[in-house]
Amino acid sequence: MKAHTVELKADERIDQLYSQDVQIIQSPSCFAFSLDAVLLADFVRANHRHRLQTVDLCAGNGAVGLFLHDKLGGQFKEVELQERIADMAQRSIELNGLTDRYQVLNMDINDVFTAIPKDSADVVLCNPPYFPVTPQSQKNPNQYLAIARHEIKTNLAMVAHQMSGLLKMNGHGYLVHRPDRISEILRTLEENRLVPKRLRFIYPKPDRDANMVLIEVIKDGNPGGQKVIPPLIVSDDQGNYRSEVRKLLYGDEKK
Amino acid sequence: MKAHTVELKADERIDQLYSQDVQIIQSPSCFAFSLDAVLLADFVRANHRHRLQTVDLCAGNGAVGLFLHDKLGGQFKEVELQERIADMAQRSIELNGLTDRYQVLNMDINDVFTAIPKDSADVVLCNPPYFPVTPQSQKNPNQYLAIARHEIKTNLAMVAHQMSGLLKMNGHGYLVHRPDRISEILRTLEENRLVPKRLRFIYPKPDRDANMVLIEVIKDGNPGGQKVIPPLIVSDDQGNYRSEVRKLLYGDEKK
Repeated sequence: MKAHTVELKADERIDQLYSQDVQIIQSPSCFAFSLDAVLLADFVRANHRHRLQTVDLCAGNGAVGLFLHDKLGGQFKEVELQERIADMAQRSIELNGLTDRYQVLNMDINDVFTAIPKDSADVVLCNPPYFPVTPQSQKNPNQYLAIARHEIKTNLAMVAHQMSGLLKMNGHGYLVHRPDRISEILRTLEENRLVPKRLRFIYPKPDRDANMVLIEVIKDGNPGGQKVIPPLIVSDDQGNYRSEVRKLLYGDEKK
Repeated sequence: MKAHTVELKADERIDQLYSQDVQIIQSPSCFAFSLDAVLLADFVRANHRHRLQTVDLCAGNGAVGLFLHDKLGGQFKEVELQERIADMAQRSIELNGLTDRYQVLNMDINDVFTAIPKDSADVVLCNPPYFPVTPQSQKNPNQYLAIARHEIKTNLAMVAHQMSGLLKMNGHGYLVHRPDRISEILRTLEENRLVPKRLRFIYPKPDRDANMVLIEVIKDGNPGGQKVIPPLIVSDDQGNYRSEVRKLLYGDEKK
């Protein structure tokens, strides 16, 4: 890939995973990808078809899609509601010289069918807001982060509905979410013709409950035959990343 | 506990886990408990109330219930359809001198409310048949084993319905099942007012998909707040039991 230069705004920085050859514009006050995005991209099955159509809903700064530039062929549409964050995604795409394959759509996922035809996507990715909004729920006072983390502007039912509408029959959807809502997540996906086929639970440390779940769905797939693939335990008891995570973040280590 | 003697039938043997002080009559041609039963009993929360009412549906030779004689107080009802296997459970109860606390009900779980009042159980256990019956499904030619493993005489929907009917509001149900049906299992439980609250996935080896899931439900519990507790990986790459499983089977090992 060619290197390009783009303008950074106040408090922005460029991050690069050593395991990846893409650079991502991050901002602690607006949006910075975290391990969730890295693990979601890792969970996606490779597909190098040149005509592949991939949509990332709730794309944020575009990290998940950009991590997949090599693993997935074809075109990417990055759908992000917040203008400031969509602009970071746009500049990250330019920074990596990927404007011929990536398009940012700064819009509500509610309106996505005004820009992308129904039943047209082979792959849909989503790292949605995790937390339901209740009268009691404490939200981040920073509005950018609150919208990214809490179901203020969208919610699980809407995400599943739009993922299903975008996918072709037998298209693959990939979601990262919180296991404390696992029953609701699986039910909501199935209610939207998205059949969960593969799950992976992520545990922060050896003796801790899971705090993330990765789910692959197939639109109109056959029910049953679900795989719960080996767990990922992120850190050891001392809080140091375990080898699988180090490899994802830093690439293969030299001895 | 007092030691008792009972008559063993052809091909029966008495097994004892070194970690447990109960003896269980087993028969390779009819029914022998396996790791599923040990893990289900381990997953149950201790409750020493003297008036506790526990029901084991699909009790088999009574292993799960007997493993819990110390962890749960009160009375146990062991519901088993197959007469020959129910008789093994009865003799195991006698063998362990537990006839004052355990009762075997040799009946179809369909008819369980003729023997146990609705909404009367604090705890319901179930290690049901795992495999759906389809025209294609290969069933064990041994009818005892086929009925224990395949949904010939009962099925997931019936198990969930009867578990729910038996439990008091806020009573706890414990189920072991196959993760390849995880969406259907969670949905079926919720359709029967059984809210999944705690899950544990069991993996046979480090790089293998899960082959069991343990689920705790609360009847009419609040939805959400589900815990996916740390995974259990049964064996190491060489097929030797890992330490947690060794402890469950053989008790604390001496150094």
